[in-house]
Amino acid sequence: MLGSRRLHPLFPRRNTSRYCKIYFSQPYARDTARKHSATRCRTSEPLSRPAGLRKRLCPPHAQPSSFPMVRKIVRRYLILARGKFLDDAKTAHGVIAYGQDEISAIVDASLAGKTVRGVLPHLQCDAPICESVREGLQYHPTSLLIGVAPQGGALPQAWRSEILHAMDAKLEIVSGLHELISEDEEFAKAARRSGTEIWDVRVPPTVPLFSGAVYDVRVPTLLTVGSDCAVGKMTVALELARSAQKRGVNATFVPTGQTGVLIAGWGICIDRVVSDFAAGAAEQMVLEAAPESELLIVEGQGSIHHPAYGAVTLALMYGCAPDALVLVVDPTARTIANFEVPALGYPELVTAYEIALAPVKPARVVGIALKTLGLDARQARYEIERAREESQLPCDDVVRFGADALYDSIASEVRRTRPRTAAVPA
Amino acid sequence: MLGSRRLHPLFPRRNTSRYCKIYFSQPYARDTARKHSATRCRTSEPLSRPAGLRKRLCPPHAQPSSFPMVRKIVRRYLILARGKFLDDAKTAHGVIAYGQDEISAIVDASLAGKTVRGVLPHLQCDAPICESVREGLQYHPTSLLIGVAPQGGALPQAWRSEILHAMDAKLEIVSGLHELISEDEEFAKAARRSGTEIWDVRVPPTVPLFSGAVYDVRVPTLLTVGSDCAVGKMTVALELARSAQKRGVNATFVPTGQTGVLIAGWGICIDRVVSDFAAGAAEQMVLEAAPESELLIVEGQGSIHHPAYGAVTLALMYGCAPDALVLVVDPTARTIANFEVPALGYPELVTAYEIALAPVKPARVVGIALKTLGLDARQARYEIERAREESQLPCDDVVRFGADALYDSIASEVRRTRPRTAAVPA
Repeated sequence: MLGSRRLHPLFPRRNTSRYCKIYFSQPYARDTARKHSATRCRTSEPLSRPAGLRKRLCPPHAQPSSFPMVRKIVRRYLILARGKFLDDAKTAHGVIAYGQDEISAIVDASLAGKTVRGVLPHLQCDAPICESVREGLQYHPTSLLIGVAPQGGALPQAWRSEILHAMDAKLEIVSGLHELISEDEEFAKAARRSGTEIWDVRVPPTVPLFSGAVYDVRVPTLLTVGSDCAVGKMTVALELARSAQKRGVNATFVPTGQTGVLIAGWGICIDRVVSDFAAGAAEQMVLEAAPESELLIVEGQGSIHHPAYGAVTLALMYGCAPDALVLVVDPTARTIANFEVPALGYPELVTAYEIALAPVKPARVVGIALKTLGLDARQARYEIERAREESQLPCDDVVRFGADALYDSIASEVRRTRPRTAAVPA
Repeated sequence: MLGSRRLHPLFPRRNTSRYCKIYFSQPYARDTARKHSATRCRTSEPLSRPAGLRKRLCPPHAQPSSFPMVRKIVRRYLILARGKFLDDAKTAHGVIAYGQDEISAIVDASLAGKTVRGVLPHLQCDAPICESVREGLQYHPTSLLIGVAPQGGALPQAWRSEILHAMDAKLEIVSGLHELISEDEEFAKAARRSGTEIWDVRVPPTVPLFSGAVYDVRVPTLLTVGSDCAVGKMTVALELARSAQKRGVNATFVPTGQTGVLIAGWGICIDRVVSDFAAGAAEQMVLEAAPESELLIVEGQGSIHHPAYGAVTLALMYGCAPDALVLVVDPTARTIANFEVPALGYPELVTAYEIALAPVKPARVVGIALKTLGLDARQARYEIERAREESQLPCDDVVRFGADALYDSIASEVRRTRPRTAAVPA
């Protein structure tokens, strides 16, 4: 077994079962799952106001496989990343770097014979890279992780036979793709035949509408927001949570995307929730994580100026009602990727996020994390210095230089703020 | 037959079948519908850029009953609004005032024996109000419309037996509720038994991600935006479209909510679309309506400052990429309903909407429509004058005073604007 075992200060064992019981998405007979979800929602009702909103739940037909379940096993992942492991396997890299599960091997023929450490040393993992699923089976994986999250979300056709092969070998299939494996006729049939399970991580649980109950939470909440998708909002949240833990602060990483959910073992993929309920889903996660934490660090999604995903960003901002924001920026980008929307300067970007929240639940940007990947050390330092000068805020690249310095600079700024309240005349 | 028949200059017959073919949601065997939807999307692909985004479609499991279908019949509605017809039947009022279908009768025991004209003269409809569905059957309806859209979206328990009774009488059931009638076990069983059909209007069709293709549309697009939910954004859009038609402009009302879809016979309930695809849904509607129109007037949703639904508003703003906005305001509100978020003044509200769009696709607020319902004529005129002074924009109540004056004031301001484009260095 070459898989590495890591310590996870962010996810203390005592908490795991509690979160998992409520949020862990698992394959389960659809009707049974629905019945139980409905029962839980009717009996627990954690929200206190407003009464009129209590009973509306996100339509259950959108959540076929959410079910409370205690996570008992640690998985051993065979990660499918054909031809994409180096450049286009965000999910795989995240799970290797931060996840709780073991990594048995990677499937990417273009790198076969090497190890993860050999090609991506910063992931600190000695798992081998092999030609095919067939070859990977010798490392005794329990699960096949589809380790690629393309912008399109769809499963490349060429991968299907590899997945079917894994099913024949009775591996559990774990997927963060938009296209659900469990709803694919061929895969569903193969899974029934071989008796394997499918975990579509994106499928959200049943959640109520946003109620405002999050405003009564007393734990300070930090949200990472970004200049675009894929600039490192999740990584920054994880690294800051780790730094807080090192300082003895009981910080909890709150995952909102498929990689985050795979890493933390709980959470909701906010972009998959029906629009009307997206803010409610974010609120529920904060309500759930707050009681056992001293600091919540919420994984951001998209960017407020992204023409396709800006609404997901806003739902998360309103829903988790943060007290402070950390802005994550790719300083080399001139536009939003795939669109011609121009990248804003630091002051404009900071202002845009603060203005968006100001009328509802004010929060300030307290620091900026830069993604200087691709720049040399000198250029990186120059960009960080430039960001500091232009924004007058603490700035750093938490991957290149560690998150401790940035965390220390912003920690005292993350204090609970009040939502705006109208001066209603009596 | 007491139902009234109205002319609909907004929905010229020649257009109806085209829109209906693509967007009309209808009950249909789930698997067949999916197969056809998938085929349509693969073969038509109306989008030209960016290529990487083309293939990702909103997950089909969320759209069980969307299917292209030509609308051949005009319905005769029996409208179920038990005890709520006067004050809490937004959907019913909209369909009566603006819809293409006949109104056979209303079910509301608290008003039994009266007529719609007798209790709500402005709806200009002579349909009778009766005690129960049983009594309403004498007016030969074809369909039962669940004419209430509570904030919670859920179906009041007491209404269930009325719906079952209608099913036994072989009426089609048409519902705009979040809680799907077709997914309710008891209703689904009753529908199978009696052979009746169920149309859950909110169920969205399969749509692709936002692509930016909307930026190439040459038809000016006007979007109504609001200070809150339920301030009249749909009504203002309908009235402005009607005024434009009177001036010989081929204006098309683009519906984005359940009442709008019921009225126009096509459209997508944007709040029911999975977050990631909400902007894409709005874009698709504009692409669909543009070729046969000279002006698009898009029905707005929610409010950019609504803590629960603000993200739906932003998805619509980014997705339909409007050239101009008409702000719809309830001047008597001090907060967002059900929340303590303070209502903003006119200049702040105008600025907030313009700032939200500015970095992506600039659009100006060109006029303000006030909801002065509940004020007397003098107060209404005072509020309109105050809005005019504070905003320096054309202001009116289009329900109380008609939309012609407001339309004439803003028509020349609704011109095609370009999206912002980055000055990317060569």
